[in-house]
Order: sequence, then structure tokens, then C-alpha cells
Amino acid sequence: MASVQGGKRLRALCVHAGYLLSVEDDSQISADSAEQLALLGSATEFYQASALVHDDLVDHSDLRRGKPTTHVRASQSHLATDSAKLSDFGTASAVLVGDITYALALECATEAVREHPAGMQILRDFAQMTKRVAIGQYLDVVLDMKTVNQSLDTDRPIEVINYKTAGYSVIDPVCLGAQFANISGSRLSALWKAISSWGVAFQLRDDQLGVFSPASDSGKPAQHDLVEGKRTYLLALTLQLCSSSERKLLERLYSQPIRSTEDCLTISQLMETSGAREAVDNKIDELYQQGVERLAKLDFPNSAPLLDLSESLVYRTR
Amino acid sequence: MASVQGGKRLRALCVHAGYLLSVEDDSQISADSAEQLALLGSATEFYQASALVHDDLVDHSDLRRGKPTTHVRASQSHLATDSAKLSDFGTASAVLVGDITYALALECATEAVREHPAGMQILRDFAQMTKRVAIGQYLDVVLDMKTVNQSLDTDRPIEVINYKTAGYSVIDPVCLGAQFANISGSRLSALWKAISSWGVAFQLRDDQLGVFSPASDSGKPAQHDLVEGKRTYLLALTLQLCSSSERKLLERLYSQPIRSTEDCLTISQLMETSGAREAVDNKIDELYQQGVERLAKLDFPNSAPLLDLSESLVYRTR
Repeated sequence: MASVQGGKRLRALCVHAGYLLSVEDDSQISADSAEQLALLGSATEFYQASALVHDDLVDHSDLRRGKPTTHVRASQSHLATDSAKLSDFGTASAVLVGDITYALALECATEAVREHPAGMQILRDFAQMTKRVAIGQYLDVVLDMKTVNQSLDTDRPIEVINYKTAGYSVIDPVCLGAQFANISGSRLSALWKAISSWGVAFQLRDDQLGVFSPASDSGKPAQHDLVEGKRTYLLALTLQLCSSSERKLLERLYSQPIRSTEDCLTISQLMETSGAREAVDNKIDELYQQGVERLAKLDFPNSAPLLDLSESLVYRTR
Repeated sequence: MASVQGGKRLRALCVHAGYLLSVEDDSQISADSAEQLALLGSATEFYQASALVHDDLVDHSDLRRGKPTTHVRASQSHLATDSAKLSDFGTASAVLVGDITYALALECATEAVREHPAGMQILRDFAQMTKRVAIGQYLDVVLDMKTVNQSLDTDRPIEVINYKTAGYSVIDPVCLGAQFANISGSRLSALWKAISSWGVAFQLRDDQLGVFSPASDSGKPAQHDLVEGKRTYLLALTLQLCSSSERKLLERLYSQPIRSTEDCLTISQLMETSGAREAVDNKIDELYQQGVERLAKLDFPNSAPLLDLSESLVYRTR
């Protein structure tokens, strides 16, 4: 399925970079530990695949990494000719494939930490990570149900990000890797706080790319977030910065069930001309630098791999 | 939500009965262990709630325990007036509420076995249980997509049962409880094999009640399995036992997207007159006795609570 083919494997990379924080020399790691660490990385990737399959269903995304998403592919099967039945089969398949993949993630995770002294704590943190993502995703669909003028200040999208993606995109996998290297509890919470702003920066970049990146680059349909009417921080900021007539126009466009290609162009231009795009870029810089400075204060013996990785994630162009 | 209100709590009861197998006197258990054991039972109940929320969505069930299911209740919210949007919100809510509840199950389970010597093994078995259920559920929707004459021999529904419900309805929770009482690995697999037939018997009873129990008793809509066209063992057996003209009638009724109240009456009468209902009752007796005899050979010090429980489950009337 598209959700485990290709992709950036960034969560597995984060697990590895989190592990390396406390390990000056990568050659110190035994073959056994390396394998267990890779399994822990795989667990985060399986979990990501599971969340994406459900997310694509919930968000009506037809493409993922340039290929049909699970519910779309299943609805094109040859098991029936009745299109309503096939659409139901698409939904059912996505729900269940996501559930199977979650269980695989859990199997990988338990195998990875089976003999690790902090194994139970790692699994508990893994469970909590998945709980926050699902809660955040739910807050997100509730937010998308509300009309744009009713509720969209800039705090709500940040709240959703904090639950839904900030943790599990970057911070949680890094902290899981750090725990695997036997970091102490107090160092772990300090690390979590230090890099928490990166998670938000990562998602703000994702939102920018969702609007300003060509479809062929992102592997998603062009301007899918705009078509579906995602209530992003970028949109909230545009509403704040634009004129009152532009705001009325946006409210009207967002009162429709979906937006046309032409509507999307109008919206993305307003995001640009209002200064919101630039303001989000500045916000990303600020959040990224905050994390860099806070991490430096923690004096980890080997933070270069994590710094390289986080920079490439936050400043990615696709 | 309806999935955690009421209900039989049978999985938690199975965990407890599995624990008691090796414990002659219930008063031997410390307050701490009792609390951890209750948490493990809660984990199985949260997991059950999660599976039901997804199952009800996939199976289009509107009622659970006499109350609207999660996707139905969410689609009746006041967040929007557009009915297509509300239906989507219903789907999204069920997917995500199921995911949140799964994560809660996992949190409970890790907390329950945090300090248990077999904790990791218990969590691994928990993960494998959930994987089998999701795979079984997927096989079930694939089976429901096929035409009735094409593929419905009596083996397919049993295969689905073996994945989907046999384990997690009875056997898995009993074995989790037994592991909590520090049963050895070889005793555990012997226990699993001994009572595996009960899981099948449990599901066959569920299928019988789904057809022959009044709606007010089961808390589900009347004859929902017949309306939706579930490919059960009972149906497969009816097809085998009925005359060729009756078989043609059944094939025609099952070629429709859904079946009317009148159709359902015809089908349930055929299940009765063909002798299939009685044959399933006999099969349940046989499977139940098989488990009782095999369990007796294992000489557990305290198998009475499990025997009482399993009998009440397999011979329940609602």
C-alpha cells in the first residue's frame, strides 16, 4: 500500500538520531542493539502508516506519495460491480488495514524493547503518543466542521498541531530513541521540552507545502488542503491579516462543501499577498531556532546528527 | 458511547477466570495484584470497545446495546446542517474514537503488567490478539463481498471466526489472565488448545442469536445480520441442507444489496426448516463438550469458575 511504500522514513531516522544523542561513537552499539533499535524505528513507521491510512480516509485524500490511497484502491477492486458496495468496501478496508498496521506497529515495538530495562516505559510512551495523535485528529475534524468566521483564531490550529503531529512527527520518535540509549527521566523531559517547538515548525512547513508545492512534488493532489478546506494556522493568519472585504470573500469560499481550482488559486494568492505566507516562514524560523538553542543548553555528547536531521525536515521543500 | 456502556464485560470476566485457574484460593491475591489484574481486564474491555466502534461502522450497524452507534450518533451532531458532511463526520468520528479507545486499551495493558515478570510476553500476546481480530474482520468483509453461490462453503465462515472472534472473545482473555498467574509457556499453549473450540462455539451462538433473538433482547436491530447479508456458518449450512429450489431462492435474496423484513423472515424460516439451526445447536454442544473434556485433562487446581463462565457464555439466550 502507498502508506508504507516510499515515504521519508523520517520517524525511524528520528529514533536513530535520538539514540545517537547520548552515544558519541555509533560503533559502540552491538549488533543486537542495532537490530532492536531498527525494530523500534520500524514500529514508529508502521504506526505512521496506520495513522495515514485512517487520515486519508477521514480527509478524503485520493493520493498518497503519488499512488491511490487504501480506501480508493480497495473501492476499485473487482469483488463487486455495485458502486455503493465498492465504496463501502473501500471504507471498510481502510479502517481495517489501519487497524492491522497499528497491531503490527505494536508487535514490532514489543519485540524491540523485549529485553530493554526501560522497555515498559517505552511502550507506555508509545501508547500515549498514539492516543494524542488520535485525539488531535479528532479535534481536527471537529475544527473542520466549524464555519471559518465562527471559531478560527490562530490558537485552535496550534492546539490541533500540538496533539496531532507535533509530538509524533519529530519529538516522540527522538525521545523513544533517547530512552533506548538509557537517558534518565529528568533528561528525557528536558529533551522533550527543548525540541517541542520543532514539532510545530514541522507541521507549519507541511501546511505551507500543502498550498505552495506542486502536486508532483508532494505526491498529494494539488492544493488538497484548500480543496477540502483544512483549518490551518496559515489560513487563520491570512484571515487576521487580510482586509475586511477579502475576509468576507474567504468566509464565502469556505462556506462551500469543497473549493474549485479557481477558488484555490484565489485563496493561495490571498495567503501570499496578505503576508501570511511570509509570517508563517518567520514563525518557522523562530520555532526552529528556539529548539536549537534549548537543545544546545542540554550539552548532549552527540547532537549533530539530530540537528542535521531536524534542519532538513523543517526546511524541506517537498 | 454505547460501546463502553453496559455490555457483558465478558472479556474482563474471562481474564479473571483464567487467572483463577492456577489460584486455589482467591484470597491469596494481594491488593496490588488484584488492581493490576483488574486493569488487564479493563484493557481487554477497552480493546473490545475499539473493535466494536470500527465493526459497527464497517457493518453499518445503527444500534449497539439498544443505543445509537458512534458513527450514527456523531452524524446526528449539530456541527453542520449539510447531511453529506454530517455523514462524513460520523465516519471520521467512528474511525478516530476507535483509535483513541485502542490507545487507551494499550495504556491500561502496559500499566497492568508494568512490574510483572511476564509483562512483555503478555503485551506481545495482546498485540497479536488485536492483529488477528483485524485480519479476521477484513476477511469477513471480503467474504461478504462475494456472491452466495460463488464461495460459501462452511469452511470460510469458520476461518473468519478463527481469526476474528474465537480468540479474543474467550480464549485470549483467559490466556492473558492465566499468564498473569505465571503459568508456564507449555501449560499456556496446552490451555489455548484445550479451550479453542469454545471460541468457535461462542461465535456460532452469536450468529444464532443474531437471527433468532428479538431485537429488544440483543440490543441490536432485528435480524441485522440477515438484512446486511452476513455470510455466516448458519447460512452456509442452510445452503447445504436446503432443496435446490430453496437454494436458488436464497441466492436471489442474497444478490440484493440489502434484504427486506419479509425476505429476512423467509431466510430465517429456511434456516429453521432445513435443519440448519438445529445442526448449529448440535455443533455448539459438541464444541463446548470438547473444550470441557480437554480442559479437565490439564488438571488445573481451580477450573470451576472458568467452566461456569464458559457455560453461561456459550448457552446464553441474549
